[in-house]
Amino acid sequence: MIKTVEWTDAGVRFIDQTKLPTEETYVTCKTYEEVADAIRTMIVRGAPAIGVAAAMGVALGVRNSQAPGLAALKRDLNHICDVLAATRPTAVNLFWGIRRMKDKFDEVSAQPIPEVRRALVAEACQMLAEDIAANESMGKHGAGLLPSRGSILTHCNAGALATCGYGTALGVIRAAVDSGKKLHVFAGETRPFLQGSRLTAWELLKDGIPTTVISDNMAGTMMRQGRIDAVVVGADRVAANGDVANKIGTYTLAVLAKENGISFYVAAPFSTVDLDTPDGSQIPIEQRSSKEVTHIAGKQITPDGVGVENPAFDVTPHQYVTAIITERGVVRAPYNESLRALAPVETASK
Amino acid sequence: MIKTVEWTDAGVRFIDQTKLPTEETYVTCKTYEEVADAIRTMIVRGAPAIGVAAAMGVALGVRNSQAPGLAALKRDLNHICDVLAATRPTAVNLFWGIRRMKDKFDEVSAQPIPEVRRALVAEACQMLAEDIAANESMGKHGAGLLPSRGSILTHCNAGALATCGYGTALGVIRAAVDSGKKLHVFAGETRPFLQGSRLTAWELLKDGIPTTVISDNMAGTMMRQGRIDAVVVGADRVAANGDVANKIGTYTLAVLAKENGISFYVAAPFSTVDLDTPDGSQIPIEQRSSKEVTHIAGKQITPDGVGVENPAFDVTPHQYVTAIITERGVVRAPYNESLRALAPVETASK
Repeated sequence: MIKTVEWTDAGVRFIDQTKLPTEETYVTCKTYEEVADAIRTMIVRGAPAIGVAAAMGVALGVRNSQAPGLAALKRDLNHICDVLAATRPTAVNLFWGIRRMKDKFDEVSAQPIPEVRRALVAEACQMLAEDIAANESMGKHGAGLLPSRGSILTHCNAGALATCGYGTALGVIRAAVDSGKKLHVFAGETRPFLQGSRLTAWELLKDGIPTTVISDNMAGTMMRQGRIDAVVVGADRVAANGDVANKIGTYTLAVLAKENGISFYVAAPFSTVDLDTPDGSQIPIEQRSSKEVTHIAGKQITPDGVGVENPAFDVTPHQYVTAIITERGVVRAPYNESLRALAPVETASK
Repeated sequence: MIKTVEWTDAGVRFIDQTKLPTEETYVTCKTYEEVADAIRTMIVRGAPAIGVAAAMGVALGVRNSQAPGLAALKRDLNHICDVLAATRPTAVNLFWGIRRMKDKFDEVSAQPIPEVRRALVAEACQMLAEDIAANESMGKHGAGLLPSRGSILTHCNAGALATCGYGTALGVIRAAVDSGKKLHVFAGETRPFLQGSRLTAWELLKDGIPTTVISDNMAGTMMRQGRIDAVVVGADRVAANGDVANKIGTYTLAVLAKENGISFYVAAPFSTVDLDTPDGSQIPIEQRSSKEVTHIAGKQITPDGVGVENPAFDVTPHQYVTAIITERGVVRAPYNESLRALAPVETASK
């Protein structure tokens, strides 16, 4: 089992995703600032994983705080949360994870400070366990959507490495394979950061699921040749109307899938669904360093002086989404209704 | 002026496109085998450029031949042509260039052997001059299709570096800019070989045409945001019905353009039109080494043992093509009629 995020006495431990697939190394962050850096530099990435990573960062920061009393600790908590919230803007799980830690703090703040600290660590660890359970549940709900034999295209990495284990999109594929389906995966390499070739291929290879890496440019022709039976991707944020922010290139795959009559599924835990954001146009899209585009593995591939853009995500309008697979069930259009119906009562009625 | 291909007394000289944009170096091929290697390894690439490169390879091989008489020289010619024809399968210009050299040989074979040799060199040099003239003419025909102000997306490199100068798709953009239009170019990086980021950006920067490099995954979102006003690409082979084989990823851009109501233009000299191939399904698609996908700049990006595919081209069905820009004029659907109407009488009636 790949340990993407782990709480240890020494700090929060991550498999270093910037070094995969050629080096399997681990990083232990001893302060919340180091956790924030790990999120920012994509040592840890994937919406569900960074939600839990941020929660563990909060627990770590509060544990390390020298605050003399509850009021000071609360001030520290707020600062820690602000720093972690500023790391990446698109994945809503980050804000969800931080919010949940703040709520837990408030819930337990009548207790002695050592108890508050313990409760926050326990809450973050609980979120990790819940994430894995959600992915397994998503897998059970989604497996039936995939054909009993065929090829599934995925994008970026929505696997064990994007979560605390098992994966969202790859969890659905794993569950389908575990149920006896004979599936082959096409992994789009996912420029610029190459999560598909570096991470998805690595973890599926470990599981013995047959995988073929292609450049992102090749997905269209594979679809047109009838070689792709379904597309399954993860999400960084799902708006209330079902619009999906996910890794750049997802919209392209959704358009190609529609054009070729192929089902396009999104697998995401309910913590990725943001009912407070009405549609995709309201989702902030992170622009990352141009160096991710201009250089690969330290080698310059564009001439000096040329312009570069690097939006890390795009928005796929809900019209292209065949179904959204969550741990609470599979929903279809109209998403404004079907997503809200899955929400706990207090959220749905707010 | 960039000299992509050049005849010199020492041999055929190429700018080494595998070294750009960080090194501007030149390679002189002294034998036809070296020319074949340069085509195979993509020191020279781009359909029109490799047509002329192959013709110069034929001229070089015949010049160097030790054949004692015409019959032996003809046997050498056929062997030289077979070696050059086996370098790359998709771009029809390669076969067109070789065919034209064989026809010239037959035409002049009554002359003394030194004259035959001179005639072949002259023919290859004539083809180079004609290629530049065709591109300039294509530019004049196509410039009017582009908006007076806006952003044009192109793919791969269909510029001076893909031809003997000026370019096909980039020739149209250059002509539009020369006519006073205010254009900005989005250059898709074009994985796996990165012709967009390495070559298109490099040559447009030299011309002072504002250019932004994006990963191929970003084109869709740029279109959806209304930031792309037209797409112009080159071609490696245009079938009689207007289906277009071009660099892998072209089909994806055509589908995205259609979905977003954006014009999709193909610029190609008539030597790229293959009236003997009825439709795109008959065009052979080159599969290149998996290493182009698994490694970038010598650095491994996929784990050992995973499957890889690397089709170098795809086919865009004619339904997606707004117009085809040739040196003989701009044609639109139905392409079966409009393309044939441009052919010289002997081809059209065959």
